[in-house]
Amino acid sequence: MAAAVTVAVDAMGGDRAPSEIVAGAVDAAADGTAVALCGPLAQLEQELAAHGGAESIELVDAPDVIDFHDEPAQAVRSKPGSSLVTACRLVKEGRAGAALSAGSTGAMLASSLLTIGRIKRVVRPGIAVVLPGKSGPNVLIDAGANAETKAENLLQFAVMGSTFAEQVLGISSPRVGLLSIGEEATKGSSLTLDAHALLAAAPIDFAGNCEGRDALRSEFRVIVADGFSGNVLLKGLEGAGRTLFEELREAAASSTRAKLGGLLLRPALREVAHRHDPDTYGGAYLLGVRGLSVIAHGSSGRRAIRNAILYAARGVQSGVVERMEQGLAEAAGSADLQDTASQHTVPVVVQPENGVSQQ
Amino acid sequence: MAAAVTVAVDAMGGDRAPSEIVAGAVDAAADGTAVALCGPLAQLEQELAAHGGAESIELVDAPDVIDFHDEPAQAVRSKPGSSLVTACRLVKEGRAGAALSAGSTGAMLASSLLTIGRIKRVVRPGIAVVLPGKSGPNVLIDAGANAETKAENLLQFAVMGSTFAEQVLGISSPRVGLLSIGEEATKGSSLTLDAHALLAAAPIDFAGNCEGRDALRSEFRVIVADGFSGNVLLKGLEGAGRTLFEELREAAASSTRAKLGGLLLRPALREVAHRHDPDTYGGAYLLGVRGLSVIAHGSSGRRAIRNAILYAARGVQSGVVERMEQGLAEAAGSADLQDTASQHTVPVVVQPENGVSQQ
Repeated sequence: MAAAVTVAVDAMGGDRAPSEIVAGAVDAAADGTAVALCGPLAQLEQELAAHGGAESIELVDAPDVIDFHDEPAQAVRSKPGSSLVTACRLVKEGRAGAALSAGSTGAMLASSLLTIGRIKRVVRPGIAVVLPGKSGPNVLIDAGANAETKAENLLQFAVMGSTFAEQVLGISSPRVGLLSIGEEATKGSSLTLDAHALLAAAPIDFAGNCEGRDALRSEFRVIVADGFSGNVLLKGLEGAGRTLFEELREAAASSTRAKLGGLLLRPALREVAHRHDPDTYGGAYLLGVRGLSVIAHGSSGRRAIRNAILYAARGVQSGVVERMEQGLAEAAGSADLQDTASQHTVPVVVQPENGVSQQ
Repeated sequence: MAAAVTVAVDAMGGDRAPSEIVAGAVDAAADGTAVALCGPLAQLEQELAAHGGAESIELVDAPDVIDFHDEPAQAVRSKPGSSLVTACRLVKEGRAGAALSAGSTGAMLASSLLTIGRIKRVVRPGIAVVLPGKSGPNVLIDAGANAETKAENLLQFAVMGSTFAEQVLGISSPRVGLLSIGEEATKGSSLTLDAHALLAAAPIDFAGNCEGRDALRSEFRVIVADGFSGNVLLKGLEGAGRTLFEELREAAASSTRAKLGGLLLRPALREVAHRHDPDTYGGAYLLGVRGLSVIAHGSSGRRAIRNAILYAARGVQSGVVERMEQGLAEAAGSADLQDTASQHTVPVVVQPENGVSQQ
């Protein structure tokens, strides 16, 4: 099973590639994770030598690079030898259990769908992100893979998000909330009202509707959202955090007295900032493909990459994908969704406005 | 025109009614605004005497009270003599230009629609809230009046929000953004793609798509959203602010050193907290009814009520409702929407799940 827990890493993706990516891979390998680094061989060897090398790192030659200017789905098709597509191909071939890239989000979504493919019954994969909840990490799914969402998609996001929280983050029986605009079961849009009924019958710990304000609390550990409002919420939280920290910094520079106060407070504040650091959990996860697909922040450095690899390895080791498949089968049984799901499982279609999607 | 700038205030609505409501009204009256206080006469007289009275305050007897347990639309119909409905009735009768309540949001929405009525062409009113942007207030509309939204609703929200920002907040030619999940015009849902085209042709300063992270920045001063994601964003921002301030407070209590730092920083932080205080702009505004309808926070105290009355009076004085009507007519012309709008203007229907809505 050694090959199965290997994490395939796109060494050329991200603002700080390849140096920081290779450094993070070396750190993860030092912690005992098998890593397959994908990129131009000569460059990988040089970087690896610079970072002290690691025996458990396999190098996979991938001469091409997809960059941010490339149209995602087209790049995936026209550059099969790119480091990003190669990482996904290793998962497809069973040589790795997870693929990771800090490169183009659109290309990673496209490649995950086109190269790795969906697991059985999945209508639409969803992006799961980890949020810093009051008492530990929360999962928000879908954070933006889909611009349009149906109730059965929300049911699948709930099952996949719940399995992910359990197997990757170690939260047992996570309470699942459905993002809506009122706590009562009868409040929301026609989409959330339909989804509410499906989630209530699903094999998860469904705790009812939640609201935007629950994202950073801990009453709900999995927040299920349509991709549109999930993305709005995620970016709203990021923006609010950035603005407030900026204003704090300005306030702490506004007078001599404030400056001294800021200096004294700094060690305590560092912990708060650390908890809100997106690097802690290494990025976003595309759930619903046959393997873990990890989309790290474009700005990911050594620590973020190391953490992302370790989390991915943990997920693979715990069989998170197999468990998702199992959960989806149970959910399909409980909601009598088998027919609907297969009806909706149509070929992947490229939508120019969103990179890649399914129709 | 003295009667027209009167603000009708529900003295009995809110957690701190009637005492703090009357106190805020007295303060606003002292600043030169005409206020009509609605509530049980004897109680009003007693409260007013306790707060020193004010000559420019008119008392309007309204013996009934709507509370949070009442089903909104039903309460509005069965309690025409309530303080909340009476405040709205004064607007309907032209005796006041704005109505304000810190009571049940659902009842205030219902009463605004049922008692005051919509302005010409308005398909669905939208809730505008004022957000603390980096360089001054921003407007988010719709913050949750509608669970389902169409493109023509978004066009009207844009026109009304823009007029509100200009006339009430004093922002000249506010840049309007359409809340979506990508900055490019081609990104978003079918709803935002349709709305993008309508907004681009409207008589406003449309600056394209914006994202959740723009809510507290100042590139866009009016953020147009469907009521579902607008509400998710608003509550996400509120939650993030509360969580971060809580964590700051805990960090500043975590050691003797941190405590001293917190003490020194406090005056500078007070300004940050003040900027983020929802009381500053006094609440939410239901735009699209024939008068200003102000929904103050349930927890509103003296200062919040005073500010809300002054902002409402400013809006009435500047003719914000008439200007909205004008803007909507222009927008209808530019988008050739006149027929569609009148088609959609059907009677108000009570939806048990959302208080009141139109179908």
